[in-house]
Amino acid sequence: MITCNIIGAGNVANHLYKTFKKSDGIQINQWYARNASKIELFKTEVEIITDINNLRPADVTILAVNDDVINEVSQSIPFENHLVVHTSGAAVIYDLDKKHKRGVFYPLQTFTAGADLNFEDVPICLEVIHKSNLPVLTELANCIGSPNYRVNPDQRKVLHLAAVFVNNFTNQLYRLGHEITESEGVEFEILKPLITETANKIASMSPYMAQTGPAVRNDKKTIKKHLKLLNSEHHKEVYNLLTKSIKKTHGFKKL
Amino acid sequence: MITCNIIGAGNVANHLYKTFKKSDGIQINQWYARNASKIELFKTEVEIITDINNLRPADVTILAVNDDVINEVSQSIPFENHLVVHTSGAAVIYDLDKKHKRGVFYPLQTFTAGADLNFEDVPICLEVIHKSNLPVLTELANCIGSPNYRVNPDQRKVLHLAAVFVNNFTNQLYRLGHEITESEGVEFEILKPLITETANKIASMSPYMAQTGPAVRNDKKTIKKHLKLLNSEHHKEVYNLLTKSIKKTHGFKKL
Repeated sequence: MITCNIIGAGNVANHLYKTFKKSDGIQINQWYARNASKIELFKTEVEIITDINNLRPADVTILAVNDDVINEVSQSIPFENHLVVHTSGAAVIYDLDKKHKRGVFYPLQTFTAGADLNFEDVPICLEVIHKSNLPVLTELANCIGSPNYRVNPDQRKVLHLAAVFVNNFTNQLYRLGHEITESEGVEFEILKPLITETANKIASMSPYMAQTGPAVRNDKKTIKKHLKLLNSEHHKEVYNLLTKSIKKTHGFKKL
Repeated sequence: MITCNIIGAGNVANHLYKTFKKSDGIQINQWYARNASKIELFKTEVEIITDINNLRPADVTILAVNDDVINEVSQSIPFENHLVVHTSGAAVIYDLDKKHKRGVFYPLQTFTAGADLNFEDVPICLEVIHKSNLPVLTELANCIGSPNYRVNPDQRKVLHLAAVFVNNFTNQLYRLGHEITESEGVEFEILKPLITETANKIASMSPYMAQTGPAVRNDKKTIKKHLKLLNSEHHKEVYNLLTKSIKKTHGFKKL
């Protein structure tokens, strides 16, 4: 049985709480939030504290707080020499105060408030300074069914960066698709099966192999038609750059 | 029972053949391909012809051929005054020879050779010149379980264009994510659950509402870190433009 504390009341903290709660291998000792009103409905199930000085040591204390307060909050923890981890993709492990055994427990997923997420679909990237702190984090991830990977600081950084491309930027392309269909009074809904299939496709083939469309065929006629059809200069700019990007990847000589 | 002919032996033709074959409401009369070797394994199930002069009229003759030969092939069809449709997102309906009743049967999906696709996940965009030709196309789409929409020429054009954004360009972002993780020896695999969830998320919320990450938070510190981390000028260019795009959508004043 792994004992743990959760610090923070945001999206990640809430999702971790709910999935830990379901596991027989994990016991949540305390949940700290500056403002307990956000997690008040769990007070019959777990000890909620609003004064961090009341926090007691546990096998793992998880800081699911904004990057810019990791250092401050970790300093304010009233004990030392126990394992304290943050959940950030971008913050360095050294943001945690050095009085602790330090680690990172970074769930690489997009969390939606209110929506349940199966942690089997949440890869956890683990980072530690001392190898001896790894097994308990691996076990914690295993308890919730999450695939987990030990990564080094540079690897976590590039994963966080690549996540911006495949999540934030991809979602922005959905948004632009929404704007484009809306401009002709077409339901964005019609595009949703295509969006799902595009994501599913790379389960079985590389994005390189999965590419289709006018850019990879170097079909100048269609590209010209598309650019003519776009009203917004910004949409044109994105179209041009990503068309160039596909051509670059697929090695056309004339860009 | 709707009778139909298929013309072409590519990806779309093959997927249509397989799904039509399964429907009790559709009878495939003939399948024409210039080069029959590609579809030879179906010759025991369907009449395959390699001379278009042997094509007989059917309720619907479907041209699943490259955009640039639609006109030529439709001219060479040895009958007239029957419904002939193409399956292109980009070609105008008038590319079909005017001796035919003309229509468009555009499946808005990405087709992978060899992979089976459930046509319930393939929206069909229907276009006709004369309204009287619509019911048989609607019925054809219903027979294979496809959601179907009557669209006008402009709407089909913008759907095809928006599809480039949410399919080709999105897939290119997966590719860039692949390049970025590879550069630090990290498995691209770790990003796949995030990719799937990003696509799933917009089933229940708009892409506008689904947006997260440094750009929508206007988190300049993380954006700066990310740009520093990117080795490739091209990756930086894409990062900058899509960050600008998100900020634009979410109405930050300073771009």
